[in-house]
Amino acid sequence: MNKTTNGPFKTTETIILASGSPRRRELLADLGLDFEVHPSTADEPAPLPDEDATQYAKRMAEMKTLDVATSFTGRTVLGADTIVVLDGQIMGKPADEIDALAKLTSLSGKTHQVITAFCLFLPDGNTTTQAVSTDVDMRASGKEELESYIATGEPMDKAGAYAIQGIGTFLVTAIRGSYTNVVGLPVARVLEELLDTGIIQPRKN
Amino acid sequence: MNKTTNGPFKTTETIILASGSPRRRELLADLGLDFEVHPSTADEPAPLPDEDATQYAKRMAEMKTLDVATSFTGRTVLGADTIVVLDGQIMGKPADEIDALAKLTSLSGKTHQVITAFCLFLPDGNTTTQAVSTDVDMRASGKEELESYIATGEPMDKAGAYAIQGIGTFLVTAIRGSYTNVVGLPVARVLEELLDTGIIQPRKN
Repeated sequence: MNKTTNGPFKTTETIILASGSPRRRELLADLGLDFEVHPSTADEPAPLPDEDATQYAKRMAEMKTLDVATSFTGRTVLGADTIVVLDGQIMGKPADEIDALAKLTSLSGKTHQVITAFCLFLPDGNTTTQAVSTDVDMRASGKEELESYIATGEPMDKAGAYAIQGIGTFLVTAIRGSYTNVVGLPVARVLEELLDTGIIQPRKN
Repeated sequence: MNKTTNGPFKTTETIILASGSPRRRELLADLGLDFEVHPSTADEPAPLPDEDATQYAKRMAEMKTLDVATSFTGRTVLGADTIVVLDGQIMGKPADEIDALAKLTSLSGKTHQVITAFCLFLPDGNTTTQAVSTDVDMRASGKEELESYIATGEPMDKAGAYAIQGIGTFLVTAIRGSYTNVVGLPVARVLEELLDTGIIQPRKN
């Protein structure tokens, strides 16, 4: 269990995080929340023919959350899914280094969207699912820069072949919207939901 | 000396970072640059009567950079200054916890600007000074939340009494502009300058 004793919020019951992402874990830990990590093991199906990117992200977040919630009756479960979207098309993780270069080249000098959907499953069985979108402007990077970035190994397990919070920081000139949403969880929005339910509250209360 | 062997860029000569900020150090290290840290020890004067925030940030960045450059002839020196501006007024670091609460309360639910100016002093004595501004939207936080944040200790040495990359992440709903600029250095802009001078280049070159 992750426990931060001096964060700004306290948790009335331990939350279950249905995600293995170290970045999401850090974001919740910064809030001071008590949570356990139980990643979903469900397979991620491809988007449906008529499904837009936001619908798909919400469906994935719900699927992961409900998959874990079935094993933990009466608990609060938080799951999320983050996707990278260029010109309406979802970009997955790169298959190999050649694919990483193709993905980074297509993002270079352009604006894309990062959409994170999260699903909060409450002890009474109610759920709330929301999606947040952030615009990300990328530098026009030459082939040598992109190859040098790929050689660091960072792009290989990332949607869109980059990480905004890591070495890939240099690829991004500006964003419009939530930064933590690009990292993997729209913290301010998730916080509002958790405060509304009464599961968390300011530590000084 | 900081040395990263697998970052995406390589340095043709070791850069001098005229700042003690651990965040700026991390941002340069992520790029893979070789640099030494020699913070300026110059006193920071207050803004002049007619000086606007951007002019002041540039003057501070130049002052710190030139202060260090005088001790390192023929070297490349990078200095920076980050300020928080609400309604045209510069907000300094909080004097105490009461002042931190006042500052955070005035930022709550509003948009402010974070301006980082950087100065690059080149071996030939030429300098370039640039400022980048990012809009930051803050959540409407209640007194208990802000007091809980102040109790973590994080606000006390920060301009505007918060850190966007730390526990203070939860205060921010959205930004428009460079995220690293709010952290303390507009990485993409600094990178362009360093590439233009030839001091750094992609590692795969």
